[in-house]
Amino acid sequence: ANNSGSNKHLTEFLDEMRSDQIREHLRKFTRLPHLAGTEQNLKYAEQIKKEWQEFGLDSVEMVPYDVLLSYPNKTQPNYISIVDHLGNEVFNTSLAEPVPEGYEGVSNIVPPYSAFSAKGQPEGDLVYVNYGRTEDFFQLEREMKINVTGKIVIVRYGKIFRGNKVKNAMLAGAKGIIMFSDPADYWATGVQVDPYPDGWNLPGGGAQRGNVLNLNGAGDPLTPGYPAKEYTYRFDLVEGVGLPKIPVHPIGFHDAIRLLEKVRMNIHTNNQVTRIYNVIGRIRGSLEPDRYVILGGHRDAWVFGGIDPMSGAAVVHETVRSAGRLLSKGWRPRRTIIFASWDAEEFGLLGSTEWAEDNAKLLQERAVAYINADSAIEGMYTLRVDCTPSLHTLVYDITKQVTSPEEGEEGVSLYESWHKRDNWTNDRNAPRISKLGSGSDFEAYFIRLGIASGRARYTKNKKTEKYSSYPVYHSVYETFEIVDKFYDASFKRLRAVAQVRGALIFHLACSELLPLDVMEYADSLRKYAQSIAQLAQRHQDEMETYMVSFDSLFSAGENFTVAAKGFHERLQTVNRLRVMNDQLMYLERAFIDPLGLPGRPFYRHVIFAPSSHNKYAGESFPGIYDALFDIENSADPEKSWDEVKRQISIAAFTVHAAAMTLTPPA
Amino acid sequence: ANNSGSNKHLTEFLDEMRSDQIREHLRKFTRLPHLAGTEQNLKYAEQIKKEWQEFGLDSVEMVPYDVLLSYPNKTQPNYISIVDHLGNEVFNTSLAEPVPEGYEGVSNIVPPYSAFSAKGQPEGDLVYVNYGRTEDFFQLEREMKINVTGKIVIVRYGKIFRGNKVKNAMLAGAKGIIMFSDPADYWATGVQVDPYPDGWNLPGGGAQRGNVLNLNGAGDPLTPGYPAKEYTYRFDLVEGVGLPKIPVHPIGFHDAIRLLEKVRMNIHTNNQVTRIYNVIGRIRGSLEPDRYVILGGHRDAWVFGGIDPMSGAAVVHETVRSAGRLLSKGWRPRRTIIFASWDAEEFGLLGSTEWAEDNAKLLQERAVAYINADSAIEGMYTLRVDCTPSLHTLVYDITKQVTSPEEGEEGVSLYESWHKRDNWTNDRNAPRISKLGSGSDFEAYFIRLGIASGRARYTKNKKTEKYSSYPVYHSVYETFEIVDKFYDASFKRLRAVAQVRGALIFHLACSELLPLDVMEYADSLRKYAQSIAQLAQRHQDEMETYMVSFDSLFSAGENFTVAAKGFHERLQTVNRLRVMNDQLMYLERAFIDPLGLPGRPFYRHVIFAPSSHNKYAGESFPGIYDALFDIENSADPEKSWDEVKRQISIAAFTVHAAAMTLTPPA
Repeated sequence: ANNSGSNKHLTEFLDEMRSDQIREHLRKFTRLPHLAGTEQNLKYAEQIKKEWQEFGLDSVEMVPYDVLLSYPNKTQPNYISIVDHLGNEVFNTSLAEPVPEGYEGVSNIVPPYSAFSAKGQPEGDLVYVNYGRTEDFFQLEREMKINVTGKIVIVRYGKIFRGNKVKNAMLAGAKGIIMFSDPADYWATGVQVDPYPDGWNLPGGGAQRGNVLNLNGAGDPLTPGYPAKEYTYRFDLVEGVGLPKIPVHPIGFHDAIRLLEKVRMNIHTNNQVTRIYNVIGRIRGSLEPDRYVILGGHRDAWVFGGIDPMSGAAVVHETVRSAGRLLSKGWRPRRTIIFASWDAEEFGLLGSTEWAEDNAKLLQERAVAYINADSAIEGMYTLRVDCTPSLHTLVYDITKQVTSPEEGEEGVSLYESWHKRDNWTNDRNAPRISKLGSGSDFEAYFIRLGIASGRARYTKNKKTEKYSSYPVYHSVYETFEIVDKFYDASFKRLRAVAQVRGALIFHLACSELLPLDVMEYADSLRKYAQSIAQLAQRHQDEMETYMVSFDSLFSAGENFTVAAKGFHERLQTVNRLRVMNDQLMYLERAFIDPLGLPGRPFYRHVIFAPSSHNKYAGESFPGIYDALFDIENSADPEKSWDEVKRQISIAAFTVHAAAMTLTPPA
Repeated sequence: ANNSGSNKHLTEFLDEMRSDQIREHLRKFTRLPHLAGTEQNLKYAEQIKKEWQEFGLDSVEMVPYDVLLSYPNKTQPNYISIVDHLGNEVFNTSLAEPVPEGYEGVSNIVPPYSAFSAKGQPEGDLVYVNYGRTEDFFQLEREMKINVTGKIVIVRYGKIFRGNKVKNAMLAGAKGIIMFSDPADYWATGVQVDPYPDGWNLPGGGAQRGNVLNLNGAGDPLTPGYPAKEYTYRFDLVEGVGLPKIPVHPIGFHDAIRLLEKVRMNIHTNNQVTRIYNVIGRIRGSLEPDRYVILGGHRDAWVFGGIDPMSGAAVVHETVRSAGRLLSKGWRPRRTIIFASWDAEEFGLLGSTEWAEDNAKLLQERAVAYINADSAIEGMYTLRVDCTPSLHTLVYDITKQVTSPEEGEEGVSLYESWHKRDNWTNDRNAPRISKLGSGSDFEAYFIRLGIASGRARYTKNKKTEKYSSYPVYHSVYETFEIVDKFYDASFKRLRAVAQVRGALIFHLACSELLPLDVMEYADSLRKYAQSIAQLAQRHQDEMETYMVSFDSLFSAGENFTVAAKGFHERLQTVNRLRVMNDQLMYLERAFIDPLGLPGRPFYRHVIFAPSSHNKYAGESFPGIYDALFDIENSADPEKSWDEVKRQISIAAFTVHAAAMTLTPPA
């Protein structure tokens, strides 16, 4: 038998992870700006490669791709002007954020900009559209009868992914869009929090960088579906996936309050094909080298990346260090572990998606699970986990073994601490776990390839802290110091996150029987089916008129439950470990439809997809959901209900097909 | 160790197959017409199920689907008229073929018709377009300056799949198409052959039935991508895949010579959703129950199916009987064997494609190989094999163990007999093996799912016998007697085919190491790359202008060869049988691109596809081939060459990705 997955080794692995080490990793990799495609980000890649080798990984390689990135023009800055009736610029927004103390001499701080914005200098009336959500535009057009065609819109950041705001503005006919950080959304309230550097709130001169693509999982806009290698065919820019057709620009709230009803945008940002670098490290599995467990997170940052992503990268670094120590003592995991430092996540998950495209065949046949390692902290309250249902049980088991990092909770498990702070729902007495949406590098692995995936980080109190993400998100104020002083002075929270992420990959790589729970998937499927059917009940009359029924989906869910139960029972008397492990591994794959979702060919998971209205949110049964959403705006209800029926049929089939994979193979 | 794959068992398995038994099976299943969707075809399905159970399979089930079929209107026959200037019908083509002796009392013989023809009674000038190939229409339009818009075209059967003729006629603007069997294409010459019943040539009153769809692998036209179950959403007929928009009708040559320049077509054929039945039998694998080897062939016939398909179905039946005998003696294959009797192949490979759609996830993870079993004989000369390159070596090995069925060749191996009659090419001294095209049930397994596939049958002498398929193909004259009297009176040829097909599934299901040869794939890939690059050389100047290079494809082929060699060498010291067998199994899958070929989403194999100009023929690097073909008719050469470059890039990437699957997994 194989004792590489023993509790003794797990304990050693987790105990070896040290707060001071995580602090040191974070300090080391946040001294200089390291935007994707820059010299400094390559230097950090080389340093990570070297250190992973020293830590003892079996192999570490740099994997380059040539992808479309976007940078401000160095000689022609981007800004917004108020123009008078003669066309003179009487006010201009700031060209950069005030640099934080201690970083005054640093060069290569990219000013706030919207990556992949169209170039242009549109001039026109300014219309405020709240958060720029679908419903905000509907309200403007339907209730307030305001047409934004030919106008420039200004929206608040928050609630939804900024790319969705830009898409909505384009659909509404706007010729430019300005996004600003409203203190209502980027200031913590309740307790008194000062702006950085005295606290962790966003200064009035700070602004949020970010890409404004609508890629829907395509990766590099010029090479959708294929890795961006040297020989790869590239589409022309005009055919590129998800590129906005209008100028876009982000500003801080000091500038926002100055803008009047008529403005000119001055945007000179350039798209350019640029080389990026993933770092890929491996530990070869002893018994199942062709089964892969992946821990991946990005390295590129808008500026210093104090929180996003280096709080996560430091955790990965410490995980590699600890695994290396175990290796040096003779331990080896049953399965292969792959560690990834992704590049260009900020430009549309490019590094991780290109590598997934490059390795799709291997991953499809061999990948057991993908654990994401972006920012490890976004608040100071408790744990946050988003994952596939089959990982629920493992997450609970693991958090019972890890200690709470909170002061005064010595001897309390992370599970208990988390449960106390964020109980799932009224109908389940357990800590809340959410669906995966998108917005980080798990996307291609989960939504395109159907690999069981999860993520874990420390978060804020969602009930009382109403700001979006965290105040200084994507600003120059994301420094090492903001973590060291405010978010996690003891680095115990980051250590707890490291232990959760580490224990996940340890169990997935070392357990004889894969720790994936098919009964949890069955429960979730039935719950999602109920919930989407309930949504449809809003239109009960029409459902009768057009004879729409969810019975086939309910029946598929019941059938899946029967298959899952049978499978679960056979596990007790398992004598064909490989066969059953393959069934467990391939269950998630069974939800993949190669035809993809309507209009989103790279979103192929029938059960989960990022919401069409907000990339960050996960939607269950997204095909049905989107078809139902269209009902309310449809000129041809019969046709729209037909699409609902088609999507129900695809969902029912997919759940049946997945159930088949759990029955005895012959 | 496992001796279930021993030579002793193989010999027993092949020796048990008996000519008289195959004759009896053929006799039994050809007494009555058994068109897909009819009562009689269900009865044969039930009989096959019962007999497979009696033979000793572990399980046999009927698997129904509800697919779109097409039948003539029973009260309004289809025919073609010559009309005079008053519109009177002065000549009508025959409504049925003269029924062969011995079958006079048989009801339910469907008259010759083109399944899925549009309804209609177009009237107009008749234009002859030779075989209706792309080049025939080009010649007519370009050289002869004849426009067929609004005309009815008449074409000879032969050279290409009839659905391609119909598509070409539609693209040219014809409002109807008549297809006839020309003696030049449906009469054997050289030796004196009489028309049936005195010989095996086509009588002048005989005509070829057949479907005229352009499905490109979609299966049931109303449920592309999903199995046609009761709850499955169905498109409206107007949205159905591949349905012709114009009336189509087949006639014999006695009628063809009567047609003058102006005719009226009278077509009343109906499309209707109809239940069909596959029969699926299984032998559970002893050691690897979750690895599947499939032997499948269709059961439905246009009329009696004496050759097509029952000569093949009789061979499958005998294979099942022989396997059952071995099972009763305690033998059991290492892997699971699945036997399939498909329905509705004649209507567009519907039964096999729906089952592939229904089981896609299982097949993708578990299927080792698919061996097709359509007609086992189409000539009296020698063996014909079409298969994936990785099966070449196994086919050669097997045919060396089987005895030639030819008189005067006692003691001569089938390999030797075959080699003597059909040497591959000048550059390889071995019997010819061809690429798989389409036109039979392997399509979904090979071209959509990427499962290693092959087919074998007895064939004519291609050098001297120039007729298409075989003279009575799809006519009422395909009887038991035509096989019993002319094609294989001793039934030794069918027995030899049974032994080849049987030995293929035996080796694939029983060998410890999968008998798939990656070096043969490497050789073929390099050969195909050379050949497609040579085709492009016709346009050498343009290739320079538009900077088109095949270097990336050559380089990918070399890289694949290196990986294949390394893999092949590691096989000699194999200690991880499962890992390497999975690499072998998944190699074919690595050539699948979920995005599909341009405009053909269900043709997903990047290396092989049915030709866009003739479904029966296999094309290598079909994406590049089609892009090159378009060059000659392009209004925008830059754009067309861009597409060639894109396709080269996809092909190179796919070959690289496949090579990666052969490297050590970690």
